[in-house]
Amino acid sequence: MYLTHLECSRCGRGHPADQPQNLCECGAPLLARYDLAAVAAAVTPERFTLRPADLWRYRELLPVADPRHVTTLGEGWTPLLRTPAYGARIGIPDLIVKDEGLTPTGSFKARGAAVGVSRARELGVERIAMPTNGNAGAAWATYAARAGLGATIAMPLSAPTICRRECLAAGADLRLVDGLIGDAGRHVAELVAAGGVFDAGTLREPYRLEGKKTMGYEIVEQLGWQVPDVIIYPTGGGVGLIGIHKALHELRELGWVEDRLPRLVAVQSTGCAPIVRAFAAGEDRARPWADAYTVAFGITVPAPLGDELILAALRDSSGTAVAVDDAEILADLRDFAAVEGLLLCPEGAACLTAARHLRAGGWIRADERVVVLNTGAGLKYPETIDVSTVPVV
Amino acid sequence: MYLTHLECSRCGRGHPADQPQNLCECGAPLLARYDLAAVAAAVTPERFTLRPADLWRYRELLPVADPRHVTTLGEGWTPLLRTPAYGARIGIPDLIVKDEGLTPTGSFKARGAAVGVSRARELGVERIAMPTNGNAGAAWATYAARAGLGATIAMPLSAPTICRRECLAAGADLRLVDGLIGDAGRHVAELVAAGGVFDAGTLREPYRLEGKKTMGYEIVEQLGWQVPDVIIYPTGGGVGLIGIHKALHELRELGWVEDRLPRLVAVQSTGCAPIVRAFAAGEDRARPWADAYTVAFGITVPAPLGDELILAALRDSSGTAVAVDDAEILADLRDFAAVEGLLLCPEGAACLTAARHLRAGGWIRADERVVVLNTGAGLKYPETIDVSTVPVV
Repeated sequence: MYLTHLECSRCGRGHPADQPQNLCECGAPLLARYDLAAVAAAVTPERFTLRPADLWRYRELLPVADPRHVTTLGEGWTPLLRTPAYGARIGIPDLIVKDEGLTPTGSFKARGAAVGVSRARELGVERIAMPTNGNAGAAWATYAARAGLGATIAMPLSAPTICRRECLAAGADLRLVDGLIGDAGRHVAELVAAGGVFDAGTLREPYRLEGKKTMGYEIVEQLGWQVPDVIIYPTGGGVGLIGIHKALHELRELGWVEDRLPRLVAVQSTGCAPIVRAFAAGEDRARPWADAYTVAFGITVPAPLGDELILAALRDSSGTAVAVDDAEILADLRDFAAVEGLLLCPEGAACLTAARHLRAGGWIRADERVVVLNTGAGLKYPETIDVSTVPVV
Repeated sequence: MYLTHLECSRCGRGHPADQPQNLCECGAPLLARYDLAAVAAAVTPERFTLRPADLWRYRELLPVADPRHVTTLGEGWTPLLRTPAYGARIGIPDLIVKDEGLTPTGSFKARGAAVGVSRARELGVERIAMPTNGNAGAAWATYAARAGLGATIAMPLSAPTICRRECLAAGADLRLVDGLIGDAGRHVAELVAAGGVFDAGTLREPYRLEGKKTMGYEIVEQLGWQVPDVIIYPTGGGVGLIGIHKALHELRELGWVEDRLPRLVAVQSTGCAPIVRAFAAGEDRARPWADAYTVAFGITVPAPLGDELILAALRDSSGTAVAVDDAEILADLRDFAAVEGLLLCPEGAACLTAARHLRAGGWIRADERVVVLNTGAGLKYPETIDVSTVPVV
């Protein structure tokens, strides 16, 4: 294993990686650091071609020492789909969708859960707890069951019901909360304070991010170790975007890609856009969003803990942040399915809406290669398509 | 392309492959035949390792001549998951699950749709029509949209509602039928008789089978070009099982595997078991099952067109056919999820129930390697898990 230590994302303080860790004393998330010079000496990009089609192909850049602790359901190496027909409609012929719907538990959250649970198991954790908007909880409950760990999952009543079912089926201790994810977070904080459970909430432990960063590696490897011009990501807690940004920097330090960074775009809903507001105002931190609501439930995060990291990634990459409204999300979801077949999740469709607006405004040029993340399976969101009017023959 | 012709599965008569074809004049399905000697001369098993992680890696054994006609959403090369913890519980330590839930549209039906639609497009078809229990229709509607073909899909009212949504989103002409799949079939037969649409119903065209057979190639390649002892498949229309059987014979003829065939097991529900009944009675054909009902909706096929082929595959491989009841399916689905995390579809869980019974009865031995097909994502079947009793905190 090439993991050397954990580093505070705000104050830079180092922390040992050989025991369970949560936030730094300064309140900021910790980032996993590796001996990248040793990784570069041990492996070359060409070697990955021969490895299994899952995220563990990047094992030198992941925080699990003993292969016996790897807890896997085959996550990662999701398709990178050319969508020229829809792309032509919105003026971006080289539009590409990375389909995270083809991930166990039906969302990209499984990447974070696979790596996070594997490392927690390696460090001796016996029970994890976390607040969730649904998909992360379903994923962590699933991987915890496969690893033999206990899981306590707190979820808003309004989260997608399929996620409740996944948690229950996997034997998790499911707590439904009459509120938003912040309320679920307060419930979990009480449990953690009482002891005996490890806080695996978004960015509160450092290894979920390591799983999610593999989306960045995959995009680059699947494009022949080239970076695209733009990567568009639906942003709630922001771990996917922060992870892709971290992956790109690691690849650059390894010398495996050119210096140029893709411009990263954070997409939020007009019903919950704390990052967009802070980005537009030139602020380093985001203020909590009041009365949050959007059909893209996964990005209903009024006060993301990773706000500083998200905003820094957008600025570092010359990116931007865009808010889109629910009616457009649902219309673009339908348009895309009619042309390309694939049923996106609303968070993925929100990225198409953002791409359309950014192209219309000239921020994306016609000749640019744009990768949009569809973060989950449309199957998990049946309410996006109304079937009440189909006649019976 | 190495496709040479089509051959009737019953009377052996040859048919040209360069035009759209349905059944033979004798009423039986046609099978695609290849110049396997030329394939063996052109490619070796080792070469596949370097190819993309989808079913098109087997392109020499698929019926599409021009790569521009390939219609793909990244289907195939699904995970083959070791499940030793659950396996130990039922006395089969070397139990392996192939998870077809990680397929576009959430079921193995996408394999048949990808290849079937690609070939239909290549042969100039402009609109397909088919009856379906849900998943196949969703898959064909999705791939038809991506290929720019029209699709008319007839589905029982009682089919999973998510499949209706997928069809509508993809722009298909959806017809809901108050009856079972046979009633939907009669509706499609009328449309086909009226002209202008190509009948893409189960085994009524020869290329869906070619897509599904790739499950057989993948199992063998993922096991290092070794065959397992037993393959257990949930059997409705039977195309998956017939396809795996065809694939194994092709691999044998290519000289890529040893002569031994895995024993194939067809799993049905006690609520719809025409194949099990015919197999037990030593018959070559199955009689229609009256009043069919099971929670494993995908295998509610009272009168499969492929009955002869299914029964022949079971006997040729020294296999068997097993009926399991709904209560056991749902209990095994829960048990498996609690131990291995993965939420199976009820059809997949039915295979675990069958494995358990066959092991208890001695038909499967403790040292045998058993591959169970989970044919779809548990996410498509929310009703398998009751969440009505979860308290709100």
